[in-house]
Amino acid sequence: MKMISNETGYWLIHQAQQIYFPNNDLPFGSAEQLGLIGKQATQIGEWHNAPLYLVQEETTNKNTANEQREWTTLRALLSLPKTQFYLLNRGIELNHFFKTHQFCGKCGEKTAVTCDEWAVQCQNAACHYRAYPVICPSIIVAVRRHDEILLACHQRHIRSDGSAGLYTTLAGFVEVGETFEQTVEREVFEETGIKVKNIRYVGSQPWAFPNSQMVGFLADYDSGEIQLQEAEIVDARWFKYNEPMPELPPQGTIALELIKATLKICEQSPN
Amino acid sequence: MKMISNETGYWLIHQAQQIYFPNNDLPFGSAEQLGLIGKQATQIGEWHNAPLYLVQEETTNKNTANEQREWTTLRALLSLPKTQFYLLNRGIELNHFFKTHQFCGKCGEKTAVTCDEWAVQCQNAACHYRAYPVICPSIIVAVRRHDEILLACHQRHIRSDGSAGLYTTLAGFVEVGETFEQTVEREVFEETGIKVKNIRYVGSQPWAFPNSQMVGFLADYDSGEIQLQEAEIVDARWFKYNEPMPELPPQGTIALELIKATLKICEQSPN
Ligand SMILES: NC(=O)c1ccc[n+]([C@@H]2O[C@H](COP(=O)([O-])OP(=O)(O)OC[C@H]3O[C@@H](n4cnc5c(N)ncnc54)[C@H](O)[C@@H]3O)[C@@H](O)[C@H]2O)c1
Ligand SMILES: NC(=O)c1ccc[n+]([C@@H]2O[C@H](COP(=O)([O-])OP(=O)(O)OC[C@H]3O[C@@H](n4cnc5c(N)ncnc54)[C@H](O)[C@@H]3O)[C@@H](O)[C@H]2O)c1
Repeated sequence: MKMISNETGYWLIHQAQQIYFPNNDLPFGSAEQLGLIGKQATQIGEWHNAPLYLVQEETTNKNTANEQREWTTLRALLSLPKTQFYLLNRGIELNHFFKTHQFCGKCGEKTAVTCDEWAVQCQNAACHYRAYPVICPSIIVAVRRHDEILLACHQRHIRSDGSAGLYTTLAGFVEVGETFEQTVEREVFEETGIKVKNIRYVGSQPWAFPNSQMVGFLADYDSGEIQLQEAEIVDARWFKYNEPMPELPPQGTIALELIKATLKICEQSPN
Repeated sequence: MKMISNETGYWLIHQAQQIYFPNNDLPFGSAEQLGLIGKQATQIGEWHNAPLYLVQEETTNKNTANEQREWTTLRALLSLPKTQFYLLNRGIELNHFFKTHQFCGKCGEKTAVTCDEWAVQCQNAACHYRAYPVICPSIIVAVRRHDEILLACHQRHIRSDGSAGLYTTLAGFVEVGETFEQTVEREVFEETGIKVKNIRYVGSQPWAFPNSQMVGFLADYDSGEIQLQEAEIVDARWFKYNEPMPELPPQGTIALELIKATLKICEQSPN
């Protein structure tokens, strides 16, 4: 992060998950035109072949100028091309990191954002501990049994009338000392009582809600009957690929990608 | 973490990467026998079918009692079965996390280790920010060109006489907003000037030096000539699978696994 003088380019200005996105794009212009001179920013990539600057998020509440902006949510931008969506995630994760690392975890003194890399460093000369942006790896997995897929409705997707809303794949954070494959086995078992086998990696996705890295897998049913972990899961069921599906996660999520890949396997080789 | 009363089991007692490992194993016994009553500990898994307790690391220097212990390094235990090696990594990463998160990054107040999950929580009632064990995903990749593998000697593996020591695969931390595959492309290009294609995930490995998660890939050479990033890499070269190899990383590392997998491909289908 450095003081903005008068750079020209695209600007990522946001407050938590709310992004300033006027006329359906990030704003382009000089820092002066956008009223940003004197704020802190860092280049985080390119947007339409011009530099993209991340403006440091204010830690106070939205001010009046901000309230007049046209905000949109990161989630509403899931349909952008992946490279663009991921860049927005980078910006939002970086600012979340800076906000949650203003003090040194080791000694409690103030930190400062470093100039040579994305990090913060303790300003106490006797400490100088450096912390790097936190990325929380989280597995996400679609489980198949013959021509069926296992989908669950999480507590957070319950409708206001109490009924089950969106159904999706299972997900959960990697614990220290686990391989991703161990996390897949543990999470599926904890959440549904099912054991899986044949765990295959599909891909990963940055996910700034607020700082996960989704690591996507496909797996096959091995054994067990569904037993819900009721604190997190409201319902979990096997859905046949050629029968009506419940509401699924939106385009752009790795969850939907995994579901589609599984339904394709169900269709092509349902055994 | 809770106060030890008189549990019996195996005990992981360590100072940074030094583990108390008398008679070639973790110590077994009651807390009283081991002089641990009153210290803080948490169960992190099972060792030879008995509970394994992690003892909270002292933040002061080794005391006299400790200095008389038989210590071994985590690195020297790479040859243990994977499940055991990963459990030791869990313990060491957890203590590293507790030591580096004694203060809240958001407000600077003291934190406390939570009882319901592995986390720390800010004790300032107006903040209460919760932080989770930091796991830094880091890609590691073996690159193949026909019947050759690309191996590099890092600055940290230079011999005391200045010559190149161990050669290994390329590795580097995932940056926020990247997929793992983007990190692979970026890191290989930054460190050696080579472009890769056909990037395939192999597996992952917890790596408590001090808190990485190695995510292993194989890739094929696409284009470019070797151009070293001299700050990090001393030498990088293509080695033919059937010619003498330089010193390679030890058994138990995912690096060696990736190298072996690549040499096998070189041997079986060198095109
Ligand atoms: N991109 C996608 O397609 C997609 C789909 C589903 C879920 N997700 C994401 O997957 C992640 C995990 O899903 P979930 O349902 O388990 O999440 P969750 O947010 O409900 O977390 C579950 C619990 O894990 C613990 N926790 C929170 N943060 C943690 C961390 N960094 N490390 C370890 N433990 C932590 C907390 O106790 C929390 O209550 C979430 O970030 C969610 O947004 C992404
Ligand atoms: N298990 C294996 O087989 C194996 C083999 C090779 C390397 N490794 C590990 O891979 C990791 C990466 O290797 P490297 O050579 O790039 O490491 P490195 O430790 O030399 O780090 C390179 C630079 O990255 C930055 N950095 C440090 N920690 C960071 C973090 N958490 N996030 C982002 N940036 C960070 C620092 O500027 C550092 O100088 C290391 O932890 C290393 O121990 C494991």
